[in-house]
Amino acid sequence: MPSLAPASRVADLVLPALPGDGPAYARLAEALRRTIVDGRLPQGVRLPSERDLTGPVGLSRTTVTRAYAELRAQGYLATRRGSGSVVQLPRVPGGRVDHLLTPAGLGEGALDLTVTAAAAPAGIADAYARATEDLGAYLSGTGYYPSGLPVLRERIADRFTARGLATTPDQVLVTPGALAAVAITLRALIQRRDRVLLETPTYPNAIATLQGAGARVVPHPIDHVDHDWEVAALQRTVQQSGARAAYLIPDFHNPTGALMSSAQREEVGGVLRRHGVVPVVDESQAELALEGQPMPEPLGAHVPTAVTAGSASKSFWGGLRVGWLRVPRSRMDEVAASRLQLDLGVPVLEQLVLGHLLDRADVILHEQQARLRERRDTLLLALRSQLPDWQVRVPAGGMSLWCRLPEGSSTALAAAARRYDVALAAGPNFAAAGGLDGWIRLPFVLPPEQLQEVAARLVLAWEDVVAGRAEVGRRDAADRGERPRSIIA
Amino acid sequence: MPSLAPASRVADLVLPALPGDGPAYARLAEALRRTIVDGRLPQGVRLPSERDLTGPVGLSRTTVTRAYAELRAQGYLATRRGSGSVVQLPRVPGGRVDHLLTPAGLGEGALDLTVTAAAAPAGIADAYARATEDLGAYLSGTGYYPSGLPVLRERIADRFTARGLATTPDQVLVTPGALAAVAITLRALIQRRDRVLLETPTYPNAIATLQGAGARVVPHPIDHVDHDWEVAALQRTVQQSGARAAYLIPDFHNPTGALMSSAQREEVGGVLRRHGVVPVVDESQAELALEGQPMPEPLGAHVPTAVTAGSASKSFWGGLRVGWLRVPRSRMDEVAASRLQLDLGVPVLEQLVLGHLLDRADVILHEQQARLRERRDTLLLALRSQLPDWQVRVPAGGMSLWCRLPEGSSTALAAAARRYDVALAAGPNFAAAGGLDGWIRLPFVLPPEQLQEVAARLVLAWEDVVAGRAEVGRRDAADRGERPRSIIA
Repeated sequence: MPSLAPASRVADLVLPALPGDGPAYARLAEALRRTIVDGRLPQGVRLPSERDLTGPVGLSRTTVTRAYAELRAQGYLATRRGSGSVVQLPRVPGGRVDHLLTPAGLGEGALDLTVTAAAAPAGIADAYARATEDLGAYLSGTGYYPSGLPVLRERIADRFTARGLATTPDQVLVTPGALAAVAITLRALIQRRDRVLLETPTYPNAIATLQGAGARVVPHPIDHVDHDWEVAALQRTVQQSGARAAYLIPDFHNPTGALMSSAQREEVGGVLRRHGVVPVVDESQAELALEGQPMPEPLGAHVPTAVTAGSASKSFWGGLRVGWLRVPRSRMDEVAASRLQLDLGVPVLEQLVLGHLLDRADVILHEQQARLRERRDTLLLALRSQLPDWQVRVPAGGMSLWCRLPEGSSTALAAAARRYDVALAAGPNFAAAGGLDGWIRLPFVLPPEQLQEVAARLVLAWEDVVAGRAEVGRRDAADRGERPRSIIA
Repeated sequence: MPSLAPASRVADLVLPALPGDGPAYARLAEALRRTIVDGRLPQGVRLPSERDLTGPVGLSRTTVTRAYAELRAQGYLATRRGSGSVVQLPRVPGGRVDHLLTPAGLGEGALDLTVTAAAAPAGIADAYARATEDLGAYLSGTGYYPSGLPVLRERIADRFTARGLATTPDQVLVTPGALAAVAITLRALIQRRDRVLLETPTYPNAIATLQGAGARVVPHPIDHVDHDWEVAALQRTVQQSGARAAYLIPDFHNPTGALMSSAQREEVGGVLRRHGVVPVVDESQAELALEGQPMPEPLGAHVPTAVTAGSASKSFWGGLRVGWLRVPRSRMDEVAASRLQLDLGVPVLEQLVLGHLLDRADVILHEQQARLRERRDTLLLALRSQLPDWQVRVPAGGMSLWCRLPEGSSTALAAAARRYDVALAAGPNFAAAGGLDGWIRLPFVLPPEQLQEVAARLVLAWEDVVAGRAEVGRRDAADRGERPRSIIA
């Protein structure tokens, strides 16, 4: 039985989205459609019965019934025997959304906005040079450190402790990045077909990783306009779904840039704790506060069972490919065993490099933050002046803007942008249960002059979309075929 | 219905193993027991009926019936309704075999023989230095190369082509080692609960990786005394099991050191091809021919669907953590997508290092082979003079000896050796379906003087085993608990 979206909740979501004119049933249908497409009423959720919705929305039963019928005709609602009206998404023209988009095949001078990762910061070459000197001491051994170099595990533990989550080195596992850390964790944590909650929107590769680990995905729509984790809805979803684990990005959430407040951490932590849901916390962007603001304590500080994944890829450089896990002591054996099914450890040299980077983290991160702040502001300014009807909330951290398009589809925009040699990850890639085609993620990781060029090309692409010149079907045809797959990161 | 071991096959295995004296039924029971413990009649196989076995073994039905009854009493046979007599293994005292042994917790001066990996060869520091120089050109990018650096993929492809398996760079995926390569492949290749054949004995971590990918393991006992892949039995097992894939180590098999002949490659390849079984070929030790002999063509050259995994860990150094996959072009999309669920690529620097190592591979591998040959001969000589009743076949390549103990159990030997600060991986760790407690793997990766010391300590441990002073139960108690898990590699 699909989980029910209570009538009061649906009314709260739908009433602010009602368009200004047209017959009442059509306005309600359109408001519901927008809410569905935005991912806030995710695929698979059951709507209240027509009768139950009448009161909360203040419309007659006939009107609600006609609105539901309209949505059914448009393909947004399925009627399942005994389950009432269940949200679904119409088939995307050209096929299903591919969570592993293919931005490759671009020409010279192309601008790739599918990866939120920047060039290496100053200081990295120095760290490599020092690590290469250290390496000599390790060459006489086999080089196998399946849980990580002791010296690095200690540094990582100390950083957790300093952030308010007391950690000892034996709780730390060094991994090939945060995604690998999540893959390792899920295999230790869940049985096949267990339900795992995740935010929508969310990080696209995590969706694939969850599914690859056999999880059934339970989407939890967060309010990505107001950056609110919607604790009451979370509580209901957790209760109704029986989720065993939850993949969460509380620290400059990808793609929205949202930062969970300390108060919400306590509430969210309480819900998870009370229902025995293990949070798998992705802290990849936690070091990227762009306003010099102090960060809230790690979400893991509120839930003793939490497993926390971190990475050097965003804070320092993606080419390092080093991440880590912080695991409750009682689970360490399982997680370490799970890791040995996937890989036997991270290269010695990269671990030494990360050690040196952490030694100088204050300086390097400060510069990295300043660099990203400048780029964020450059892109924001360009968008505001050239695409003023795109809505953007200024993120206080992270590496990307999450923009609402005034109309049209981000899939169409991505297709149009490709003709101007810009690779974009359209909104639906970030949707755990469909929708979000009205949104686009724009990373601000390229140098300012390139971001200016991004904006200029987006203007051209957007003109094509508005004029109906974008051809979505061709994008799909071009994406399948000769090109190597790539990633959204 | 468990697959049947034909009576003629059982007779072939059992007759040479008959002990010299005692009543006929007891001799047959003992011969069957030895064959089971050796892994050549694996757990789960159905023995022929008592009546069917009488002819081939030349014994009366009463004798065979008494022998089966004896095995049942000892716990080696289970009678399942409608399935006849099915091979099983008695419970190991102290619990089940752990495929992820814990050799850690050894004292100073301890000798770790659980990992077949050597110290880095000469020339590696130079490769790191050159790679660090190259790195500058990559620091201005994001560092994400999920399929591998083009320049490295090209070199790897060329090496396959030179070995007789024509390969283009787009068929190569760079991975964090061979085990990760296998984990990636299985997730693309098989559905949950598909059957996957693997040799027994085999590489212990591969067993865990197969199981982690949801495979049901189909053991194929190879003749590890005569280094024969038993093609007729393979054909039967493939037919009876419906295996979809097969994990195989034809090139200096781990742990036996066996090298599949060119003729057997053709036969094995034919069986797999005809039955649509996809071989996942682990070539980790293919570059470690120790007699300067020419190598047979890759097994993948006989089966177009083959996926081949390789690694720098054995040929060069384990601390690099770089491996690769060679994939048929038609499957590349699936495999590349599978990889993105597990990790987003290998560090840029390690890929550059491997590139430089491959440039000088002839020289470096020649020295690596010479070094291993000397160590192999040192350990062989020490064993022959000090433990002359241990049987060892000289392996023509690889990194370990596979020794048959004259009596007693390798689990007991490993427990005894631990008291002399030697960590051993006992035979059962290499068994895909139980057995092999009469065998022990001894890597020859340590320097000669340490291998002399290994032999001296093994003599002491062996004396304890023979005198009944080894306490297996205590090993298990000590292994669980405070120590971090480690690996067998």
